Amino acid sequence: MARDERGVTPQSEDFSAWYNELVFKAELVDRGPVRGTMVIRPYGYRIWELLQADLDRRIKETGHVNAYFPLLIPESYLRREAEHIEGFAPELAVVTHAGGKDLEEPLVVRPTSETIVGEMMAKWISSHRDLPLLLNQWANVVRWEMRPRMFLRTTEFLWQEGHTAHADAADAMSETMLALGFYGDLAVQTAAMPVIAGEKTASERFAGAERTFTIEAMMRDGRALQAGTSHYLGTNFARAFGIQYTDAGDVPQFCHTTSWGMSSRMIGGVIMTHGDDRGLVLPPGLAPYQIVIVPIGHGQQDGEVGAAAQDLAARLTRKGVRVHVDDRPHLSPGFKFNHWELRGVPIRLELGPRDLATGTVLLSRRLTDEQRPDDKPAKEAVSLDSAPARLSFELAAFQAMLVQRATRFRDERTISTDTWADFTAAVAVGWALALACEDPACEDEIKAETAATPRCIPLDGEPDSGPCIRCGQPAAYGKRVLFARAY
Amino acid sequence: MARDERGVTPQSEDFSAWYNELVFKAELVDRGPVRGTMVIRPYGYRIWELLQADLDRRIKETGHVNAYFPLLIPESYLRREAEHIEGFAPELAVVTHAGGKDLEEPLVVRPTSETIVGEMMAKWISSHRDLPLLLNQWANVVRWEMRPRMFLRTTEFLWQEGHTAHADAADAMSETMLALGFYGDLAVQTAAMPVIAGEKTASERFAGAERTFTIEAMMRDGRALQAGTSHYLGTNFARAFGIQYTDAGDVPQFCHTTSWGMSSRMIGGVIMTHGDDRGLVLPPGLAPYQIVIVPIGHGQQDGEVGAAAQDLAARLTRKGVRVHVDDRPHLSPGFKFNHWELRGVPIRLELGPRDLATGTVLLSRRLTDEQRPDDKPAKEAVSLDSAPARLSFELAAFQAMLVQRATRFRDERTISTDTWADFTAAVAVGWALALACEDPACEDEIKAETAATPRCIPLDGEPDSGPCIRCGQPAAYGKRVLFARAY
Repeated sequence: MARDERGVTPQSEDFSAWYNELVFKAELVDRGPVRGTMVIRPYGYRIWELLQADLDRRIKETGHVNAYFPLLIPESYLRREAEHIEGFAPELAVVTHAGGKDLEEPLVVRPTSETIVGEMMAKWISSHRDLPLLLNQWANVVRWEMRPRMFLRTTEFLWQEGHTAHADAADAMSETMLALGFYGDLAVQTAAMPVIAGEKTASERFAGAERTFTIEAMMRDGRALQAGTSHYLGTNFARAFGIQYTDAGDVPQFCHTTSWGMSSRMIGGVIMTHGDDRGLVLPPGLAPYQIVIVPIGHGQQDGEVGAAAQDLAARLTRKGVRVHVDDRPHLSPGFKFNHWELRGVPIRLELGPRDLATGTVLLSRRLTDEQRPDDKPAKEAVSLDSAPARLSFELAAFQAMLVQRATRFRDERTISTDTWADFTAAVAVGWALALACEDPACEDEIKAETAATPRCIPLDGEPDSGPCIRCGQPAAYGKRVLFARAY
Repeated sequence: MARDERGVTPQSEDFSAWYNELVFKAELVDRGPVRGTMVIRPYGYRIWELLQADLDRRIKETGHVNAYFPLLIPESYLRREAEHIEGFAPELAVVTHAGGKDLEEPLVVRPTSETIVGEMMAKWISSHRDLPLLLNQWANVVRWEMRPRMFLRTTEFLWQEGHTAHADAADAMSETMLALGFYGDLAVQTAAMPVIAGEKTASERFAGAERTFTIEAMMRDGRALQAGTSHYLGTNFARAFGIQYTDAGDVPQFCHTTSWGMSSRMIGGVIMTHGDDRGLVLPPGLAPYQIVIVPIGHGQQDGEVGAAAQDLAARLTRKGVRVHVDDRPHLSPGFKFNHWELRGVPIRLELGPRDLATGTVLLSRRLTDEQRPDDKPAKEAVSLDSAPARLSFELAAFQAMLVQRATRFRDERTISTDTWADFTAAVAVGWALALACEDPACEDEIKAETAATPRCIPLDGEPDSGPCIRCGQPAAYGKRVLFARAY
């Protein structure tokens, strides 16, 4: 395993190389045998489990229930909604042969489940009393990727997809925004990832949706990452699949449906929001180990020091802290420090005979003083007696500090501009808020020249008007649009 | 939804029809559009989530970690282990086309993951310090089914698959038995399903395994259901995929590997172990709602009775009980009683103005006095004040009673026999313990005549010897074999 312990290309030197090396060296993933697929290794999967547990709780607390729909969908289902099949056709993986025979109708490996869920909703809903129907599914989906990248764009990925049906547009729209709120809260509170919530322009809408909403986060190379989307589907899928109910007056009506998803790509966002030259920096909310204890001194892991480390770990565990004692006898403390720094553990505790004698343990934070916006020291002695309470507090402080750091980073690289020169300079290193028309051809030109695309029309944008930043025609939307290069 | 509220064919009349109707009417599943696939509806999926949570805890407590491996596996991988491909070839679903092109090599939708996990283990393991490697995956798998049946045999199903690598046979064998223990404990403690743990004979072994162990439960039609299996794979997959380590003396060695799985078929086992003519009977350990409260009296769901029902529900929730108040205003109490009996809720509470006046609630147990081996009354008044503590106790008692009832049922229908006449009579209605040779041809004859197969050689069987029940040749195994018709 020694090959994994070498450092990675510095982030500042080559961001892309840094990311591509780090995901392997931190043992988050391995390459699958099929192009674009990934194996999610235990350390990476634990981050996914923590994301899942958090989001699943939010989903259930608001009255949604989990279900499971089949992986294989008849190709004809996707064709029933014209925009939907147009959007997904190039990415489909198709089963043509099964049980030793050629199939009469090819089966698509689900790229998303609106069609099969729509078919079932049509069976399950008959009266207004059956509404709203609030479903969620945790599943794998397959979309053939031409330019795969671990976590961000993989041929198969893990996600949850919410699918709901409502009596009218107002109820469906409030569900769409509720789900967007799940993602915003998950990103900020748990992933320490500040996000801008907004609506997509027409060209970036989900295939088959009336309106698509997104949360966008800034990565440390200034690019945007879409970290969750929520769609108001209108009656498009209801009409395609016959999802109808009889209202209180016994009149048949089409349902208004929504869908919304968050995927394993969120892990890529966490890596690129917080990581540095030395490796991952994980927010305590998602860290498999929030604290690692390293016993110091030759042979100490078996003696008094080792016992004290285990005792401290037990007390931290009872306090709900995810803690690990690295007592591997054949490795040096220095090796272990690098090992856990690369893996982004927020707080390290060093415990040697001298610490024990003074009844303390040496706390070391993952980021240097220059990197952290707080005024805490990089290292400090903490009393062993009060360590569990104190460390719970320090983990919460570290989490809050990461949000502050990422927010400051993003805000320093985001400008509101009305000149093309400032716009192109801004999107080369960060984000630009600009007035824009709604002509897809104009968006295409902006992309061709700057690589930037409209990420969203921020929900909390101030009313504004004037000429489009690119073509000078009157701007649409009544507010500024967020532009950035994006993953 | 009214069509779902009609009863089901009595179990005693036609067991198979009872099962096939019940899984739909209790809203556990719906039929997927592709033959043999199922949609797991929220009520059924909740049972799966409870099984998952229980088993995942057992798996993690013993040092295993979860990971995720790709769904699509190159066909060539399966061919590397000769018995493995032979066993799975007829059941494979194959992707031949993806991203708008024909693939160079067909991809198999995983029927199980030994091959892809083996490929990764070979990369991840190099030294004896990397062992044991204890992995688990929660995933969907696809096996093309000729005779599908909801939960029991579906083209796609949900499961967990453990995959571990060890330095030697002894360590791998003890892992194999540890995993079998997870399943036995899950079945008995949580599913209230008594099981016989034992080893499979050669003909029933997993394709590629050296030894296969199973837990077998008796369904209420006397048939056996295999509810979990654990395999010692020897060095078969290690040799096929090059899973090697260097031992303490720096000598390269092949790992010994195991795999073990429990699937959504367990839900079918729960249904057929406890259900009756009126519908499901769910053990409290797996019931989505352990208690349902029905407010009695016209319009009472909005008044004082409704408030008292909500208050009681809140107190039960704080006690960790999964409780639901059925306050639907347009349905009668009688309708609701049938609704929740069909869905197997262990305890129903009826609360009306007269109960409220006496400070009590009427408890009603899901099984009749004749069905229950305990001497508790079918209905009794319980003090509202002490209800949470009392009902927690009653749920535990109900769970224990179900184990007792199922064990008695099984033991009454299991005989140890040395005559062919008794054997054929026994397996027509239950199980037979008999001496048997190990000739697969003899097993085939037994199956042809009686439909019974060797389910397992029970681990706790007494030493025994004599002639084979069928052919008269000397019996193998040194103990009796359990025979039954099986799902």
